[in-house]
Amino acid sequence: MTHTHRYPLDGITVLDLGQVYQGPYCGFLLATAGARVIKVESPQGDPTRSTGGSSLPFAMLNGNKESVCIDLKTPEGKAAFLALVDQADVLIENFVPGVMARLGLSPESLLARNPRLVYGSASGYGSSGPYRDMMAMDFTIQAMSGMLNATGEPDGPPVKTGPAAVDFLGGAHLYGAVTTALFERERTGRGRICEVAMLDVAYFTLTSYIGAFVDNPGFVPRTGNRHAGLGLAPYNLYAAQDGYLAILCIKDAHWQGVARAMGREDLASDARFATHAQRAQDMAFIDELVGTWTLTRTRAELAEAARRHGFPASPVRNLGEVMQDDHLHERGALVELDHPLLGRVTLPTNPMRFAGLPAMALRPSPTLGQHNADWHVPGRSGT
Amino acid sequence: MTHTHRYPLDGITVLDLGQVYQGPYCGFLLATAGARVIKVESPQGDPTRSTGGSSLPFAMLNGNKESVCIDLKTPEGKAAFLALVDQADVLIENFVPGVMARLGLSPESLLARNPRLVYGSASGYGSSGPYRDMMAMDFTIQAMSGMLNATGEPDGPPVKTGPAAVDFLGGAHLYGAVTTALFERERTGRGRICEVAMLDVAYFTLTSYIGAFVDNPGFVPRTGNRHAGLGLAPYNLYAAQDGYLAILCIKDAHWQGVARAMGREDLASDARFATHAQRAQDMAFIDELVGTWTLTRTRAELAEAARRHGFPASPVRNLGEVMQDDHLHERGALVELDHPLLGRVTLPTNPMRFAGLPAMALRPSPTLGQHNADWHVPGRSGT
Repeated sequence: MTHTHRYPLDGITVLDLGQVYQGPYCGFLLATAGARVIKVESPQGDPTRSTGGSSLPFAMLNGNKESVCIDLKTPEGKAAFLALVDQADVLIENFVPGVMARLGLSPESLLARNPRLVYGSASGYGSSGPYRDMMAMDFTIQAMSGMLNATGEPDGPPVKTGPAAVDFLGGAHLYGAVTTALFERERTGRGRICEVAMLDVAYFTLTSYIGAFVDNPGFVPRTGNRHAGLGLAPYNLYAAQDGYLAILCIKDAHWQGVARAMGREDLASDARFATHAQRAQDMAFIDELVGTWTLTRTRAELAEAARRHGFPASPVRNLGEVMQDDHLHERGALVELDHPLLGRVTLPTNPMRFAGLPAMALRPSPTLGQHNADWHVPGRSGT
Repeated sequence: MTHTHRYPLDGITVLDLGQVYQGPYCGFLLATAGARVIKVESPQGDPTRSTGGSSLPFAMLNGNKESVCIDLKTPEGKAAFLALVDQADVLIENFVPGVMARLGLSPESLLARNPRLVYGSASGYGSSGPYRDMMAMDFTIQAMSGMLNATGEPDGPPVKTGPAAVDFLGGAHLYGAVTTALFERERTGRGRICEVAMLDVAYFTLTSYIGAFVDNPGFVPRTGNRHAGLGLAPYNLYAAQDGYLAILCIKDAHWQGVARAMGREDLASDARFATHAQRAQDMAFIDELVGTWTLTRTRAELAEAARRHGFPASPVRNLGEVMQDDHLHERGALVELDHPLLGRVTLPTNPMRFAGLPAMALRPSPTLGQHNADWHVPGRSGT
C-alpha cells in the first residue's frame, strides 16, 4: 500500500459493496486513483469469483482492493460493518434500491452515524419512480432505454451490444458522483448520498437518434453499420481480405482522401459526389465502390492508406489483437501481472491519467476475506 | 445563474472547448452539478449546431452553459482566451492531442499561467503511444477496441452499436478525472493536467469477453442476443405480439419463474433443466419454448408476468416510448423545456443525483457567442 507518488485520492478510505461490474468498476477507479478500497463481500463472495476464488473479470475490477468477508445478516457482522463505516470516507453499492434499508443499514442511518460519509448508490432505475424495484442488468437496460432498438440491420431484429457498455457507463458515473461529493465535502465538511441510474445514463447515448426522431418520427432506427441518420457516405463496415474495416467520412475532404486512396482522382473532384447530401443519396453506389476496393487489400494495408490519405478508418480487431496491442502496452493502459491464482495475466490500468503520475501499479485482486484480521472483522480470513 | 440550492460545484468556472459529444457531455455534467460553464466556440460553432443555430442534440448537451465565440488563430482571440484562462478553474477539450499546442496554448503553458487550473483532455488514443495522432470517432474506437467484433450474429458480420456509447463513456470518465483533480486541488492548492482515451475506456466494456477468451481462445465472439459466454438460458430477445422482449435468467429461481409464467410448473421442477449448465446445453429447445409463449402475448403482458413471477425481463422500447416514459418524467430524469429556437423539447437532466437537491433546472443552450460581451470577448455577440 506504499506509493512512490502521491495520487489524487490518497488518504480516502472506501467501502466497496459493489457486485459484478458496475459497483466494482467504480471501486477500481477509486483504488487506482489513490484511495484505500475495502471490498465488503458476503460469505458467497462476488459472483464473478469463479469456484477457484478468482477469474480474469474479477481480477480486472478488484485489483488494488482489500477484501473483508462479512455476513451483514448477523448482529456480529453488522457491528463489524458499522465499525468500518465509522472509519470510511465513501461507501458504494449497486444493490436494487431498498436492500441496504432492509438490512437496517439505510443510507440515511449511515450518514447519521458518520456525517462525513459519501454514500454512492448505482442501480438500474434509481431510488424513485415506478420502476425503482425492478431488477436491472445491462441487457434489460439496453432494451428499456432504446439502445437495443437502435442496433442491428434495418430488416432484422434488434441486436444487443455485446460489451457491457451500460454497466461501465453506470460505474463511471457513480465514480463521478462520488468524487463530486468528496470535492464538496472539502468545502462543507459534510457527506452526501448520491445515486446514478443506468436508465438515466443510457438515454444520453441515443443523442443522435433523438435528433433524428424529432426531425422525422418515421426515421429508420436501425441502420446496421451505416450512419445513424443515413446522412453520411462512405460510412460503413467494409470487408477486407482478412476481416473488416470501419470507414467514415465526416468531412468532404475525407471522401476526397478515400477517392485518392482508391486511385480514383476523378471521383475526388466529381461534382456529383461533392457533398454529404449527394453521396448519401448514392449511398449504395458509394458503398459498392469502396467495398470492391477494400476486398483487394488487407486491413493493415487499408489502415495505412487511410493514414496516408487522411480519412478516418480502423480495422475491426479481435480480442487477441487488442490484448497484445503495442499502443495500449506502450502507454501503460495494459500491463502484465503475475496473479497468485491466475498466473500471468493482462490487466488494464486506470483510464484516467494524471500528468506527472504513472498509471498506478496494479496489485492482484484479494482472496475472499483476505483482510478480515486487518480490519478486526470476525470470521474467515484468507483461504 | 441563481440557484435556490447550493450545488456541489458552485463557484467553479469551466472553459468548455468540447465538440460534438464527448467534451460537451462532460461540460453538461459540470454545469448541471453547479459549475459556471463557458462554452468556447470557433466562429463556425459546434458542429452539432444546425444551420438554424441549434439542434436537439446541441440543446441536450449544451444547456446551462454560456457561449463565447473566439477565433483562437488570431492574436486578439488568443488574448481574450488567455484572460478567460486566468479566471478559470477547469478547462476541458476533446481535440486530437497536439491541437492546443499548435495554437500556442499547450496544457503546460496554460498551467504555467494559472497553476490552479485543472486541464482535462479527452481523445481517442491519448497523448502518448503510436496511435496518438490518429483520428478517432465512436465508430472507429468500437472497431479498434474489439467492441464491434463482439456485437452481431455468430454467422453474420460485426454490427456497430448504434448509440454513441464510447463517446459518452469518454465524457463520463473525463468528468471523473476533472472532479478528482478538483478534489486534489482543495488539498494541494495545485491544478493538474488529466486525460482520458476512449480506447482505454472501451477495453473495460469487454470484461466478459476477455474472461471467455482466456478460458477458450476459440470462443464465439458474437452471440446475437444470447449470453456472451453462451452459459445462460433463457437469455435472449424473444418476439412478442407487438415487438420484442429481453429475458435473462441469472439465477435458477429466475428460470423457475419463467416456467411458472408459461404455465409449465412441471418444467420449473424438472431435474433436466435445474442448472445453468443443463439449460445452456439445451439452449435451442429453451429458446424455442420461451419464444413460442412470448409470441402469444404483448410486451406489456409479458413484463407484468415477469414482475409477478420474479424474473428479469424488459420490453425493447422505441424512442417515442422512452421519451414519454412515466418513470423518467416522474423522477425528473426527463423534463420539458421551451427552447427559444426549437420550441417545446424533451431534455434529460444530470444523471448524477445528490440527495436533498432536485436535478438542476435546465436552461436553454446559448446562441453562438451569446455571452461575448459578458466575458469581454471582442467580436460577435448574440446571433
